[in-house]
Amino acid sequence: MTKAGERKVMKVLAGETVFPPPVWLMRQAGRYLPEYRATRAKAKGFLDLCYTPELAVEVTMQPIRRFGFDAAILFSDILVIPDALDRNVRFVEGTGPLMDPITPEGIAGLNASGMHAHLAPVYETVRRLRAELPEETTLLGFCGAPWTVATYMIAGHGTPDQAPARLFAMQHPEAFAALLDLLSEISTDYLIAQIDAGADAVQIFDSWAGVLSERDFAKFSIGPVKRMVDRIRKERPGVPVIGFAKGAGALLEDYRSATGVDCVGLDWTVPAKLGRQIQAGGAVQGNLDPLRMVAGGRALDEGVDEVLEVLGDGPLIFNLGHGITPQADPENVTRLMQRVRNATKR
Amino acid sequence: MTKAGERKVMKVLAGETVFPPPVWLMRQAGRYLPEYRATRAKAKGFLDLCYTPELAVEVTMQPIRRFGFDAAILFSDILVIPDALDRNVRFVEGTGPLMDPITPEGIAGLNASGMHAHLAPVYETVRRLRAELPEETTLLGFCGAPWTVATYMIAGHGTPDQAPARLFAMQHPEAFAALLDLLSEISTDYLIAQIDAGADAVQIFDSWAGVLSERDFAKFSIGPVKRMVDRIRKERPGVPVIGFAKGAGALLEDYRSATGVDCVGLDWTVPAKLGRQIQAGGAVQGNLDPLRMVAGGRALDEGVDEVLEVLGDGPLIFNLGHGITPQADPENVTRLMQRVRNATKR
Repeated sequence: MTKAGERKVMKVLAGETVFPPPVWLMRQAGRYLPEYRATRAKAKGFLDLCYTPELAVEVTMQPIRRFGFDAAILFSDILVIPDALDRNVRFVEGTGPLMDPITPEGIAGLNASGMHAHLAPVYETVRRLRAELPEETTLLGFCGAPWTVATYMIAGHGTPDQAPARLFAMQHPEAFAALLDLLSEISTDYLIAQIDAGADAVQIFDSWAGVLSERDFAKFSIGPVKRMVDRIRKERPGVPVIGFAKGAGALLEDYRSATGVDCVGLDWTVPAKLGRQIQAGGAVQGNLDPLRMVAGGRALDEGVDEVLEVLGDGPLIFNLGHGITPQADPENVTRLMQRVRNATKR
Repeated sequence: MTKAGERKVMKVLAGETVFPPPVWLMRQAGRYLPEYRATRAKAKGFLDLCYTPELAVEVTMQPIRRFGFDAAILFSDILVIPDALDRNVRFVEGTGPLMDPITPEGIAGLNASGMHAHLAPVYETVRRLRAELPEETTLLGFCGAPWTVATYMIAGHGTPDQAPARLFAMQHPEAFAALLDLLSEISTDYLIAQIDAGADAVQIFDSWAGVLSERDFAKFSIGPVKRMVDRIRKERPGVPVIGFAKGAGALLEDYRSATGVDCVGLDWTVPAKLGRQIQAGGAVQGNLDPLRMVAGGRALDEGVDEVLEVLGDGPLIFNLGHGITPQADPENVTRLMQRVRNATKR
C-alpha cells in the first residue's frame, strides 16, 4: 500500500515491488497530443520550446493532467548538450536533427564554459515543474548517454546504424575517447544541476547502444555511464539513476552491476527470461511495444497483460519499450492507464 | 587437415572444426570492388544485373578470383521474390529499394504461379557458377526470410525500425499470417530450385529480426524459418541451411534448436559468451564488424584476432557480422585473408 502523497516511482527505484506498478511513458509529452501540438505551434522552433520555461512546463504538465501518470519527465532533448557546445544544432521538420559534424581537431577545441548559462532555462523549467506537480508525482530529469550524443555530433544527423561514429572511433580512438570523457563530465554536471533544481531521479538515454560490439559497448556505453553514475552517487547521494541502453539485447545482462544504475530500462525486444534476470537485481522499467499504442484494442490489452505477467511480480515501472509515436491515439493511453491501474495479481 | 578439392565450408556446416577457418564475406560481390562497378555499369539496372546470368556469374566470380574465398554466394537480392510477385520492385540510386506497398486485400490476390519462369535466369546463374567455380569452393544460394521480405512488401521501402510491418501485423493479423505463409512456401520453392541448380548450401537472411519482441520473433521469424528448414530437410536431405537473424541478440540463444538450421549467423553485436553458447550446438558464422574493413590497420587486425580467439576453437565460418560496405578498401580484404589463413592456434 502507498500512502497519499507518496511517490510510487521512487519506491520502485529503491527496489520495492509496487502493484499495480506506477506508470509513465517515454515521450509522453509529444506530438500524439493535440494540446502539445497547439503549444508547440507557439514556439519559434523545437529548441525554443525546450528553452522557454513557460512552454516547456506546459507541455510537461499536459500528459500529467490528462492521464495522471506517476512520473513527469522534463520536456527537453538529448541534443541540448551539443547545442550548448555550439554545434549549430537545428531541428528541421521532416528531416530530424542536424548539426555541424565534428572533426578530431574540433573535439580538442570544444568549450563547455558557457553550458550552464545556456541551459539555465532548462533548470528553471525543472524548478517550476517541481512546484507545480502533484506531491505524489515523481519528476525525472534526463540526458543522453555520451555514446548516443557523440553519434549525432560525429555524423551531424541521425543514421540507421551510426556507422560514422563507429568508424570515427576506429580511426581516431584518442579523439573519440576525449569526446566521450568531455560528454561524461558535462552531462553529469547537467544532471546534477537538474537534481539541484528539483529532479527526484534522472534517466540516461543510450538510444544507440544496440549497434555496438561487446568490446565497444563496454568502452563507449558502459564506461562513460558508470563514470556518470559514480559521480552522481558521490555528489548527490540518494538520487536514483535509470539507465536505458536501447537495443543492447544480451549485453544488458550485466548492465546494472557494470554501470551501477538503480533501474534498467528494457526495450520491447528484451525476452522474458532476460528481463526477469535483470529484475532479480533491482528495478526495471518498460517494456510495451510502442506500436501497441497505435494499434489499440486487443493488441494493446494483450501487450499490457504480458508486461504485467512477465515483470509484475518484482520492482517495475510500467513504461513503453521506446518513445510513444506521433501516430498513437490518446484514447489508447487512457485505456492503458485503466488496464494497469485495475490490474490484480494472478 | 583438408584434402585438395574438399569444401571446407561444407565440413564446418557438418559441425567439424576447421582451423584456420574457411572465409567468405557477406556482400563480397559489391560496390567496394572496382571490377564490380564496371560490370554493374553494363546492366540496365540492378535487377537486370541479377537476371542476366552472364553478368551475375561475372560479379559472383570476381571476389573469388581476387581473394580466393572458400565460398561464393549467388549474386542476387532478397527482393527478387516480391519482384516475382509483381510488386513493381525498383532500385533507385541513392534511395534504396522501392515497391508498391501491399494491402490486406492485395495479399489475398498474390499469385506466385509465374515465379519459376521469372526466376529462371537466377537458376541458370547457379548452374553456370557451379560449373565455373573451383572444386573446393562452396556455392551458397540464398533468400530473405519471410519476415524481412514482408517488411519491405508492406512498407514499400526500407524503414529504420519496420514500424509499418509491425503495426500491420497487429492490425491485420490474419492477412499478415497469410503473407508469411505464402512467403515461406515460395521462398522454400526458390531455395530448392537453387539447390537443384547446384547450390551446395543455402542461407536465409532475416535482416530485420532485431526489431521484434520475443513473442513476435517466435511467430514471425522463427516459425516461418522452421517451416522452410523442415521442408528442405525433407525434400533435399543433407543440404545445410545457414540462418542469419541479424540483431536478434538474446533471442538468438535458442535459434538453432527452434528453427533447425545447421549454422547460426552471428552479427557483430553478439557477445562472446552468447556466441560460444550457440557454437556449443554446432556451426556459427561471423562476426567481424564490417566497419573494420573500412578502418583497416590495427582495428582490422585486432578485430580478426578477436573473432578467432572467441570462436576459433569450434566450428566457425569466418565472415563479417553484416555485409561489407561500399567504403571498404579491397586491400583490407587481402589483409584479412592473409591474417586468417596464417592464424595459428594459441
